[in-house]
Amino acid sequence: MITAQSVYRDLAKIREQSPLVHNITNFVVMNNTANALLAIGASPVMAHAEEEAGDMAAIASALVINIGTLSPVWIRGMEKAMAKAAERGIPVVFDPVGAGATPYRSETCSKLLSGCPVSIIRGNASEINALVFMGKPGAAKTKGVDSTISSDSVSDSAKALSSLYNCVVSLSGATDYIVKSSGQILIHNGHPLMPRVTGLGCTATALTGAFAAVNSNYMEAAAEAMAVMGIAGELAARNSKGPGSFQVNFLDALYNLSEGEIQSLLKAE
Amino acid sequence: MITAQSVYRDLAKIREQSPLVHNITNFVVMNNTANALLAIGASPVMAHAEEEAGDMAAIASALVINIGTLSPVWIRGMEKAMAKAAERGIPVVFDPVGAGATPYRSETCSKLLSGCPVSIIRGNASEINALVFMGKPGAAKTKGVDSTISSDSVSDSAKALSSLYNCVVSLSGATDYIVKSSGQILIHNGHPLMPRVTGLGCTATALTGAFAAVNSNYMEAAAEAMAVMGIAGELAARNSKGPGSFQVNFLDALYNLSEGEIQSLLKAE
Amino acid sequence: MITAQSVYRDLAKIREQSPLVHNITNFVVMNNTANALLAIGASPVMAHAEEEAGDMAAIASALVINIGTLSPVWIRGMEKAMAKAAERGIPVVFDPVGAGATPYRSETCSKLLSGCPVSIIRGNASEINALVFMGKPGAAKTKGVDSTISSDSVSDSAKALSSLYNCVVSLSGATDYIVKSSGQILIHNGHPLMPRVTGLGCTATALTGAFAAVNSNYMEAAAEAMAVMGIAGELAARNSKGPGSFQVNFLDALYNLSEGEIQSLLKAE
Repeated sequence: MITAQSVYRDLAKIREQSPLVHNITNFVVMNNTANALLAIGASPVMAHAEEEAGDMAAIASALVINIGTLSPVWIRGMEKAMAKAAERGIPVVFDPVGAGATPYRSETCSKLLSGCPVSIIRGNASEINALVFMGKPGAAKTKGVDSTISSDSVSDSAKALSSLYNCVVSLSGATDYIVKSSGQILIHNGHPLMPRVTGLGCTATALTGAFAAVNSNYMEAAAEAMAVMGIAGELAARNSKGPGSFQVNFLDALYNLSEGEIQSLLKAE
Repeated sequence: MITAQSVYRDLAKIREQSPLVHNITNFVVMNNTANALLAIGASPVMAHAEEEAGDMAAIASALVINIGTLSPVWIRGMEKAMAKAAERGIPVVFDPVGAGATPYRSETCSKLLSGCPVSIIRGNASEINALVFMGKPGAAKTKGVDSTISSDSVSDSAKALSSLYNCVVSLSGATDYIVKSSGQILIHNGHPLMPRVTGLGCTATALTGAFAAVNSNYMEAAAEAMAVMGIAGELAARNSKGPGSFQVNFLDALYNLSEGEIQSLLKAE
Repeated sequence: MITAQSVYRDLAKIREQSPLVHNITNFVVMNNTANALLAIGASPVMAHAEEEAGDMAAIASALVINIGTLSPVWIRGMEKAMAKAAERGIPVVFDPVGAGATPYRSETCSKLLSGCPVSIIRGNASEINALVFMGKPGAAKTKGVDSTISSDSVSDSAKALSSLYNCVVSLSGATDYIVKSSGQILIHNGHPLMPRVTGLGCTATALTGAFAAVNSNYMEAAAEAMAVMGIAGELAARNSKGPGSFQVNFLDALYNLSEGEIQSLLKAE
C-alpha cells in the first residue's frame, strides 16, 4: 500500500536528489515530459541515437522507453539503452503507446520486452490488452493511441501481463490499477480533462521513472507516480477553463505539490 | 457556402464521433497539432515510419501530411500512408510547409502531389504560389515558412493549383480563400496574433483533416476548419497579453466553442 | 559594453527586419525555440535534412546549431548548413547541449567546431567546461543536460574556449559571462524558475542567433540576448505560480518587452 506519507516522502527524495531520468520517447510529448520531470524536481535527458543511448543510460538513475513515434533507428537506440540499464540494475519503465494499433507497434513491444527485462509497464487499457492478446483472438482493437475500453475491464489482463514479463503493470484509466502477482493498488485520483491533453499518459510514464529512481519497491513507485499525476490533475482542473489552461496549471501543481494536498486528496486502496 | 449551423453541425459530429486523424507532420508542431485535435474532440495519432504508416492510415478517418521538417525516410512513410488513404478513399489534407524556400521542399511537394491524389491543399500565400510557379518565372521566394505576400494577391494561383491537382485549395491569410473550379468561399475571421504563434497554420491543416473526416464536401470542410480557427483565435485574443497566453486561450476556446459564439462571429462569404 | 539603449535598439531591429533564423536543433525544444523567436519578432525556420540544410542556410540571416538530440543523419545536415553559413559569412551560434555527458556528444562538438568556424558558443558551465577539458583530467562530469557547477567557477574555461575556437563564448548561469580575448560582459539578470523550464538555454541560443543577425559585434549580440532572456524571465516570474505559468508569461514578456522595462531591469557590467 501507499500512503500520503510515502508519496510525499518519495516526492521529497526526488526534489532533493534530482535523479537523472533518461527518456527515449516520442516526438509529440518530449517537451511535456521534460517539463513535468523538471516540475517535480527530477533531471530529464533525452538521447536516442544508438551511438550514445547506452552511455547515457550508464549515468542515469532510471530509463524510460516510450514507443509513440517509432522507427527502426530509434528501436536500436532503445535496445542499447535497455541492455545497459539491465546490466546496471536501474529501473526501466516501458510505455507501449498505441500497441495494437499496427502490427509494427505490437511486434516492437514484443521484441523489446522479450529482449530485456523491464521493471514497470505503464499503458492504457487498449495497450495492455493488446500486449496480452498479441496475435490471439480476444484482442481489442486499439484506436490510434487512445483507449477504447475501460481500465476496469482489463485488470485481469494487467495481471496476466505482469506474470508474462515478471514486472509491475501500471494500467491507467478512470481508476488506475497497479498490479503484480503479489497484489494490486488502486488509485482513484484524476480528472476527465486529462485525456483531452496529449501525452499525459506519457508524462505518467516519465514520472513513474522518477519515482522508481528513488524507491526500489516498483509497485509503490508506480502507484505513487499515478497518485501524483491524479492529484495534480485535480488541483489543476480547479482553475482551468479547458485543456489549454489545464496544462499550465498542471505543471504549476506538480511544482508546488504539498504534503497537505496529497493528504487531503489521495484516494488509494 | 457554409453557415454557422453547418460549422456547428460538423463540430458536433467531430465531438461525437471522435474521428481518428493520422498525422505525418513536423517536429515543431506535433504537440500543438495533437492538442488542437483533442480540444475539438478528434483523436490524433502520429506515425511516420514506413513500417507502419500504411497500417495506421488503414484505420484512420483522415490523413494529414505536412512537410515542415522533411527527410527522405519520412517521405517514404508519407508515400505509404497516402497510397493507403487513396485506396480507402479517406480524405488527405496536404500542407506544403516552406514550399519555395528550398528546391528539396518544392520537389518533394511535386513528387508527393503527382504520386497520389489529395483532397485539400492548405498553405499560405508564398507556399501556394510556389507550388503553382514551381521552376517557372513568377514564383515568389518563400522566406522560410512565413509568407511574404498576401493571400489576396494569389487567389488566382490557388485556383490554378486547384485545377492542377484536382483538389480543394485552402489558402490562409488575413482572408482565407477556399477555392475549387466550382467556386470559392472566403473566411474573414482571425487575429493578428495568430502568425506570432508557431504552427497555427499546421493546426489549421490538422483541423481541416478532422472536418473532412465528418463532411465529404471537402470545400465546406476546409472552410469550416478555417472558420473555427479564426473564431477561436478571436475569442482567445480577447484575454491574451501576447502569444504565450494566446496559445493557452486558443486551446480553451476550441474546447468550449459554442454554437452561439460561431453564430455571432462567423464572417464567411 | 551593452546598455539599455543598445539592447532596445537591436530588439527594435529584429522586430523591424524579422531576420530569418535557421535552426537545426533538438526535438525537445523546437516548439519553444520557434515561439520565442516569433515572440521577439524574428522568423524561425527548422530544416535539418542534408538534402536542404545548405539551401536553407543560404537564405537565412543566422544559423543556430544545437546538438540536444543528436544522430548521424542530423550531424550531416549540420555540417552542410555550417559550411554554407561560413561561405556566406552569416553568424553561427552553437549550443553544445549535454557535452561531457556522453563521448558521442563531446566528439561531435569537437568535430563540428573544428570543421567550420562558429561565431558564438552558448552553453552552461558543465558544457563549456567539458569542451575545454575534452579527454583531459579536470573535466567535470555533465549530468545529462543540466549543469552541476556554477558559471563563476568556469569563467576561465570560457576564456580558454574562446581562444581555442576564436569565437565569443556565452556562458549562462546565475551570472552570464560573455567572453572573448578582448574582454568580458557580465549579465546578472534572470530568475531561479528558469532552469525549471526545459529548453530555456536552447531558447537563449536561438535568441542569440536573432541578435547576431542584426548586430555583427557578436559579443554585444550575445550579451544582449542574455539580457533580454533574463529580463523577460524576471518579468514573467512576477505573475507566475510555477514553471507552467512562467512559460506562458515568458513568451508574453518577450513579445511586449519595452525600452522602459529594459532600462529599469538591466544589470550588465
